[in-house]
Amino acid sequence: MYEYTQLEALCAVIRTGSFDAAAGQLGVTQSAISQRIRLLEERVGTVLVKRGQPCTGTDSGKRLATHTDQVRLMEKALEFGLPSTETRTPVRIAVNADSLATWLLPALAQHDDFLYDLIIDDQDHSADWLRAGEVAAAVTGHPGPVQGCDSHALGAMRYFATASPSYMARHMPDGPTSEALEASPAMTFNDKDRLQSDWAKTVAGHTVTLPKHRLASSQGFVEAACLGIGWGMNPESLCRDAIASGHLVELARETPLDVDLYWQVSRLTAEPLRPLTRSVLEQARLALIQT
Amino acid sequence: MYEYTQLEALCAVIRTGSFDAAAGQLGVTQSAISQRIRLLEERVGTVLVKRGQPCTGTDSGKRLATHTDQVRLMEKALEFGLPSTETRTPVRIAVNADSLATWLLPALAQHDDFLYDLIIDDQDHSADWLRAGEVAAAVTGHPGPVQGCDSHALGAMRYFATASPSYMARHMPDGPTSEALEASPAMTFNDKDRLQSDWAKTVAGHTVTLPKHRLASSQGFVEAACLGIGWGMNPESLCRDAIASGHLVELARETPLDVDLYWQVSRLTAEPLRPLTRSVLEQARLALIQT
Repeated sequence: MYEYTQLEALCAVIRTGSFDAAAGQLGVTQSAISQRIRLLEERVGTVLVKRGQPCTGTDSGKRLATHTDQVRLMEKALEFGLPSTETRTPVRIAVNADSLATWLLPALAQHDDFLYDLIIDDQDHSADWLRAGEVAAAVTGHPGPVQGCDSHALGAMRYFATASPSYMARHMPDGPTSEALEASPAMTFNDKDRLQSDWAKTVAGHTVTLPKHRLASSQGFVEAACLGIGWGMNPESLCRDAIASGHLVELARETPLDVDLYWQVSRLTAEPLRPLTRSVLEQARLALIQT
Repeated sequence: MYEYTQLEALCAVIRTGSFDAAAGQLGVTQSAISQRIRLLEERVGTVLVKRGQPCTGTDSGKRLATHTDQVRLMEKALEFGLPSTETRTPVRIAVNADSLATWLLPALAQHDDFLYDLIIDDQDHSADWLRAGEVAAAVTGHPGPVQGCDSHALGAMRYFATASPSYMARHMPDGPTSEALEASPAMTFNDKDRLQSDWAKTVAGHTVTLPKHRLASSQGFVEAACLGIGWGMNPESLCRDAIASGHLVELARETPLDVDLYWQVSRLTAEPLRPLTRSVLEQARLALIQT
């Protein structure tokens, strides 16, 4: 077994960014922190902390810190009420940007015993974080369950292919034909984002190569679409007002794309996260399309 | 000199994600694309494209693609009006998330001859992208100029330390004392974000270790603050309405933090980007604090 006072010291250094602050947080001397980190590094046989301003974790150091967080969460579930040096438990969650921008935060806000560490990644890739043991839970497009996880269906997020009316008049006067799609600037969140290409393929009947702006912001997508910079797949709740006011129109009427989402949570930490899971499921039921 | 037909093939494969789509884009056969990539890889002596679904660039491949984009931008400035296989020039810009969320997009929207590739990074780090030659321009907190770049002062973005009234009542009934700051959850954008720590240090008179949620979204920061999840530094234009409606209050009255921003543009590509630079400066003059 590891020496958990050493692992706590490691977490504190990585979180606060300095040996000094870590000492303050744990109520010990700085030399005690240094010694714990040194002993841990000797034991593991690799550098765990990059010394600098601020100090940061190496890949191995971060892996150990995540492990420590998970053990802490599991200890919380024991409910023996042991006194802790920290009042809030860090919990890492992978989430797609559009869920973060639309419905997830009110669920998180119902629990103030956690410190949330939110990893934003595409819904097709957030399950990778679970597989790697890097997060305790994820909002993902992967029905799973990923090995060692429980999976809960959340419902579907509805997207509309949208652009400004003046963009449509300039670039797609005859609608989203293959030729128009290949010549008109689309937007993409990042290299992993396939929503635009998937929608275009459905509408055109074959794969279409889209010229793309790259812009990793949910709200930025909506604003850029309103400004005529490009067209993009926007979540219904983010573009509803702009459609109602005429600032955005659908590229083709009534052609939504529904993306199923799931809440997957590691079984190791499912118990202490149960109240959070309940809030997430409730919030999703209100915000997402249930079938 | 490189063979630019080979470099164009490389760009097309990385952008479209497949040899087939690249062939379609450049109007040549797929075997022509394969041969160009193979010859280029033999010449450079390293793999440039990771074959897969989709194909992606290796680090070397991406570096060569960026170089090709820059040459393309420079060719555009020659204004000989040579016909091009692409109608829009890709331009990579590093920008801090808060500028993207508040004032930059209307400037970009004034030019439809570019395909924007926006790299979102902290204002203290976006100049690194310029130094590495990875971007043509950056919105940065670094007055510079970075070597080989022109620097234009944009003005200052004003931030307010904000939280919900119920958060303040629960966590900071006596305001942001050192003890309250060390015990109450703050938010941080990512490990690079020092705004909260800097503000707390100014107010407390010494370094304070903040418990932190991590949440990389400008609008998410404002929403999470309104929901009482934590306190954070929010740009004036994003939190103005919430302050006026009483959903947010300042942790301490009239303690803004102003962050100076600069537009730095590589001299290699300054000429073709001149109209864009003009729009960026105009938009910043309207949106940022001028001294």
